[in-house]
Amino acid sequence: MSEVIVLAYSGGLDTSVCVPLLRERYGFDEVITVLTDVGQPKEDIERGNERAEKLSDGHYVIDARDEFVRDYIFPAIKANGSYEGYVLGTAIARPLIARKTVEIAEELGADALGHGCTGRGNDQLRFEAIFRATDLRVVAPMRELDLSREWEIDYARDHGIDVPVTREKPWSIDENLWSRSIEGGRLEDPFFEPPEEIYAWTKSPERGVPPEKVEIEFSKGVPVALDGERIGGVELIERLNRIAGEHGVGRTDMIEDRVLGLKARENYEHPAATVLLNAHRDLERLVLSRAELRFKAAVDEAWSELAYMGLVNDPLYADLSAFVDESSKRVNGVVKMKLYCGRAYPVGRRSPDAIYDQEMVSFDSQTLSQRDSEGFSKYHGFQARFLAKR
Amino acid sequence: MSEVIVLAYSGGLDTSVCVPLLRERYGFDEVITVLTDVGQPKEDIERGNERAEKLSDGHYVIDARDEFVRDYIFPAIKANGSYEGYVLGTAIARPLIARKTVEIAEELGADALGHGCTGRGNDQLRFEAIFRATDLRVVAPMRELDLSREWEIDYARDHGIDVPVTREKPWSIDENLWSRSIEGGRLEDPFFEPPEEIYAWTKSPERGVPPEKVEIEFSKGVPVALDGERIGGVELIERLNRIAGEHGVGRTDMIEDRVLGLKARENYEHPAATVLLNAHRDLERLVLSRAELRFKAAVDEAWSELAYMGLVNDPLYADLSAFVDESSKRVNGVVKMKLYCGRAYPVGRRSPDAIYDQEMVSFDSQTLSQRDSEGFSKYHGFQARFLAKR
Amino acid sequence: MSEVIVLAYSGGLDTSVCVPLLRERYGFDEVITVLTDVGQPKEDIERGNERAEKLSDGHYVIDARDEFVRDYIFPAIKANGSYEGYVLGTAIARPLIARKTVEIAEELGADALGHGCTGRGNDQLRFEAIFRATDLRVVAPMRELDLSREWEIDYARDHGIDVPVTREKPWSIDENLWSRSIEGGRLEDPFFEPPEEIYAWTKSPERGVPPEKVEIEFSKGVPVALDGERIGGVELIERLNRIAGEHGVGRTDMIEDRVLGLKARENYEHPAATVLLNAHRDLERLVLSRAELRFKAAVDEAWSELAYMGLVNDPLYADLSAFVDESSKRVNGVVKMKLYCGRAYPVGRRSPDAIYDQEMVSFDSQTLSQRDSEGFSKYHGFQARFLAKR
Amino acid sequence: MSEVIVLAYSGGLDTSVCVPLLRERYGFDEVITVLTDVGQPKEDIERGNERAEKLSDGHYVIDARDEFVRDYIFPAIKANGSYEGYVLGTAIARPLIARKTVEIAEELGADALGHGCTGRGNDQLRFEAIFRATDLRVVAPMRELDLSREWEIDYARDHGIDVPVTREKPWSIDENLWSRSIEGGRLEDPFFEPPEEIYAWTKSPERGVPPEKVEIEFSKGVPVALDGERIGGVELIERLNRIAGEHGVGRTDMIEDRVLGLKARENYEHPAATVLLNAHRDLERLVLSRAELRFKAAVDEAWSELAYMGLVNDPLYADLSAFVDESSKRVNGVVKMKLYCGRAYPVGRRSPDAIYDQEMVSFDSQTLSQRDSEGFSKYHGFQARFLAKR
Repeated sequence: MSEVIVLAYSGGLDTSVCVPLLRERYGFDEVITVLTDVGQPKEDIERGNERAEKLSDGHYVIDARDEFVRDYIFPAIKANGSYEGYVLGTAIARPLIARKTVEIAEELGADALGHGCTGRGNDQLRFEAIFRATDLRVVAPMRELDLSREWEIDYARDHGIDVPVTREKPWSIDENLWSRSIEGGRLEDPFFEPPEEIYAWTKSPERGVPPEKVEIEFSKGVPVALDGERIGGVELIERLNRIAGEHGVGRTDMIEDRVLGLKARENYEHPAATVLLNAHRDLERLVLSRAELRFKAAVDEAWSELAYMGLVNDPLYADLSAFVDESSKRVNGVVKMKLYCGRAYPVGRRSPDAIYDQEMVSFDSQTLSQRDSEGFSKYHGFQARFLAKR
Repeated sequence: MSEVIVLAYSGGLDTSVCVPLLRERYGFDEVITVLTDVGQPKEDIERGNERAEKLSDGHYVIDARDEFVRDYIFPAIKANGSYEGYVLGTAIARPLIARKTVEIAEELGADALGHGCTGRGNDQLRFEAIFRATDLRVVAPMRELDLSREWEIDYARDHGIDVPVTREKPWSIDENLWSRSIEGGRLEDPFFEPPEEIYAWTKSPERGVPPEKVEIEFSKGVPVALDGERIGGVELIERLNRIAGEHGVGRTDMIEDRVLGLKARENYEHPAATVLLNAHRDLERLVLSRAELRFKAAVDEAWSELAYMGLVNDPLYADLSAFVDESSKRVNGVVKMKLYCGRAYPVGRRSPDAIYDQEMVSFDSQTLSQRDSEGFSKYHGFQARFLAKR
Repeated sequence: MSEVIVLAYSGGLDTSVCVPLLRERYGFDEVITVLTDVGQPKEDIERGNERAEKLSDGHYVIDARDEFVRDYIFPAIKANGSYEGYVLGTAIARPLIARKTVEIAEELGADALGHGCTGRGNDQLRFEAIFRATDLRVVAPMRELDLSREWEIDYARDHGIDVPVTREKPWSIDENLWSRSIEGGRLEDPFFEPPEEIYAWTKSPERGVPPEKVEIEFSKGVPVALDGERIGGVELIERLNRIAGEHGVGRTDMIEDRVLGLKARENYEHPAATVLLNAHRDLERLVLSRAELRFKAAVDEAWSELAYMGLVNDPLYADLSAFVDESSKRVNGVVKMKLYCGRAYPVGRRSPDAIYDQEMVSFDSQTLSQRDSEGFSKYHGFQARFLAKR
Repeated sequence: MSEVIVLAYSGGLDTSVCVPLLRERYGFDEVITVLTDVGQPKEDIERGNERAEKLSDGHYVIDARDEFVRDYIFPAIKANGSYEGYVLGTAIARPLIARKTVEIAEELGADALGHGCTGRGNDQLRFEAIFRATDLRVVAPMRELDLSREWEIDYARDHGIDVPVTREKPWSIDENLWSRSIEGGRLEDPFFEPPEEIYAWTKSPERGVPPEKVEIEFSKGVPVALDGERIGGVELIERLNRIAGEHGVGRTDMIEDRVLGLKARENYEHPAATVLLNAHRDLERLVLSRAELRFKAAVDEAWSELAYMGLVNDPLYADLSAFVDESSKRVNGVVKMKLYCGRAYPVGRRSPDAIYDQEMVSFDSQTLSQRDSEGFSKYHGFQARFLAKR
């Protein structure tokens, strides 16, 4: 019986080299490739498709952008998805890509699932958190064969794989609709200042572009309109990536703790994410109760940690989502954001659900007198005072 | 026997009006004023001293700036002091001012302590958390007498108190070395965009000033040098306020939950604080373990909450400080910050205590092979997988 | 127009005295009493009804036991409701009693709401958190008039109120289906050992009653059957109170932090609650993922804190409930509890949703070898090791 | 040059079998054994020593009981060390045993460190978290060779190792001064009720022994006296194990999440630990502020999690300890505990540092009137009310 493997295929050198390797080294009879479109550059997808057509025994390309926005990006906005203080980007696309690969494998009755991640990073863990929930065999050639880039390039050439020829790859890039990550090379020195050339989505903030304002409307915690115009999620994010990218908004330079425990220097671009998350957080401060804001910070943190680790299958993920969905019911309103020289910050916000009234006190027929806060004052810090007097 | 009250005196209209009121309405025989210098503008302090000399039965001015930096600002840096996501500013000066007032009262054997806060805000609670830990009577004329600004201006004039004559006070301002707050007036409409005129420490980020870099050196979590030059804390913060203020760095516009439960729209300026806190957080990511970073976030949050409420007397404050001091022992190193158009962000960092090595893996004689992460992978998300398979 | 007040009436001295006081001191024309049955002793309710019939201008008695179980006790089980380590009891009945009182007031178009709590404890805050969410006036005679027990007894006699005559009331008692609290008198000395006489629901654990086992079946986190017999919540709790009470199960003696900040010595009895909560927690350990157990502990804590404070109106309460309901979906199964000499502890548990298999490892077609844990081992504590080697 | 390994030796079958295996299978020239006394039964230690004398090329026995109490058990008391709700026992001895083994290896200039743990449990991870912080090679024969118990017994016989002959080992036991764990065999069925025979430290609670009271005195969070008599930690714990063991106190039956992610059914005995931890927690409620109690719960949880995982090298452990030491400064006083039929519960407590006074209110010269709590009431739940009125 013929052994079939379905490979999560990106179109790059690593996953392209995997195709013949899975036949030659692992003995698979058929290698099926699945390229999931989560908003990578169109050229990358097209080139990936062309390569796959030549290499694989069957190629699928899946436009998952709407699903990505609805089931991964919008939840990330509602949960203020961030990791160690910065926008959570690459991580949230992995489970979706893995799930699409599994779907094809299950349709085809395949025997195994493959990915092209090495044993150094987070992505192997994110893929396998999904892959290993099936009964299929999991294969990770890059991790198992420990190949060098040089070897891969030679091997690719020998197998007629058309890949960019540079032996030096200055940076390692990953892109989806929400975020673009850049790592490796000289960036591994944390004191080395990121050069302008690493950025593709954001123009230099120093070009002197005049400030621009955008109004984001949220409904139940997710953005539904830009400057008053209702548009779908994919388009809204694409547009904001362009607009805010012009202002150099959304660059991150950070030291990050990977799942395995190593720290790494990471750089990201995510213009739309920065605008939307800053706006969302600002609106939450207007509509959520203080108790909600405090506890939701812990929920957001836990949600983000699971998302970063790719553990969206853990039942905690669903529990946290139930909390977030409930608290998001009142996250409705408009935030006016100013974009300028790399910043995106709120300058005004309004909501039908604000826990705020310019005449806050007057709302209460049991009028709050200044005298009432004297009573409050006397109990504020009561225990500390008791101790101090002792 | 003569009844003596010591009043925490700021030099403004409210506390100036308090002086004769405490005699006339409360029957105190002597009203002693204490003006604590925590870095307010020099003119304000001088004018305050002049007014107090005329009004009070004894006036003290205390330069507490060094103490403010050492015992309040530096701890705030180590604990990444922030409230609801923004720099914690006004709050941290209150306990110091209250304590200085108490010290004078205890020296003089006074009978009562007074402050000029109303019953609407946070400061009454912060003052009284310190005041009420003594056995002295606490008096709060503004809260108890419920006076209008108009009434106060008339009363001031009648008592020869020289105050700025505007009946309309567009904004309510508070300043110390670490932060300047602006609230009230049209800002109470959260959708009203803050006009340029509310700012005093920061110039418009839109002036087109070219970017500038500064290097901050930290030792045990506190800044000790600027661009390689070792300077004291007060001077370092003053200089950074000027330098970063030129770039419009450190403006906050937020909806804030006050202690009593009301939300308020608050605006702040804090150029040095923004530079130092961003740099400090960046350095922590390099030197603290992942477990420390996770838990310290909760510690910082709890520290900030206590600081915001003025509850520095609660024994939890000392407990948290013990944690922070311990974790700060390895927070040593240099962060290169770029200041530009309202932003201050790290572009490089280095530390002798980094949990990072460009050749991370090679450090280990028990070399980590890629194969090891396969084992890790198999346990990653184990329980979720178990459930999924069921 | 006639002024009408609706009073939350318990039948005891305080609320009985309130009825004439509300006419005489507050000038209300009609005082309507509402006695809500949340599982107090039948005699108390009957006696309360008799007194109310004589005293008030209209009396309502509402059997809210089913609602209490469904909407307050069952959620408390799902959230492991406890405060400072002990069963949360009195607190959860207050919002229900307050809401029933408000319902009557709204039906009648009354002008005011009243309760009989003093200004020392928690219950005033719990009642008013509900009462003040209406536009009605809130009246608290016990707090506002500062009456002594002696004065109340004389006043009661003068107004023909038939109350127990003892001037010395050794303990202050509160009862509902879930818990009975005892406080005051000599118990205020925390070193005084609680005498056997304070207990009414639990017999002495020292009587030498032989051990007894009960099996509790849970469905979605709530108990649905006792020893295999499906019964309704009220009956199940009543039965367990009797059964476990025979074994002296469910006594609490603790120092508790009240909402206002004072510590108090509190004693409670809650046999059924102890059995059900211990069983529920045990079952959760079998069916919830480790990540869920960790985070749900924080959710339970926050839920309990809100419940203790009576803040069930805060939107956080609904958010937390959404989490708890989601996580409870898999809390199905049976726990065998042993009751003996004051203890109720699990001795066996089973569930169709267990994340457990006696052959745990064999479930995985990608068999986990012992070798895999070597890889895991190498990453366990990686950062600490990196530091130690430095 | 001769290759030397130092083996953490327990005296049981597994580590005894390791000695010849390390020579035969791993080629070590010298196998040095280290038996660390952390309070195991004296017979076990003696028998271990005898076996080691015959087997190894050098044997060390280290009495680490005082160090165990001072540096591991006392910190566990101060941090209320518990895992998933139950006393944390086995875990805390592992780092000490590992460290003692490392000390000998460093003295001898050995080449490798060995332990006898399998790849299924937690202990491999705890040992290696310490071992791998050195540059020595780490060897784990049980994990690497995947041996069966049958094979081990045959191998032991062939090598003249005198071990208990039963091929069926009904339970797997681990003991130290603080806790005794029992697992395996029929206990792996979570619905199987633990038989009386698994217990060695605790007598059946059903024997009808009359209740007994003990008074524990704490100083800075650690027990210093028993019934008024000052005694050292080792003796105090040994005595309490005997006394409370007579009453059947301190049995745990739980489902536990192991570090690798598997759930396991675990049973423990820990009479002294139950008495001391219950007493300690009770005293804390009297002397810590509410804010401290809340946050310390999170600190204790994090401390316990690290301790369970054996990550005492993580710098977070030192940070948390700094917090705990600070908060423990006021944990002074006496708790009266009643031991009866498997329970140990507080019936009285007193402290010079209590935040409690029977006349709490009168302590304040600024007398708290009942009227003050009306002010407090009006702000309690303010935001929820605002929303409800909307």
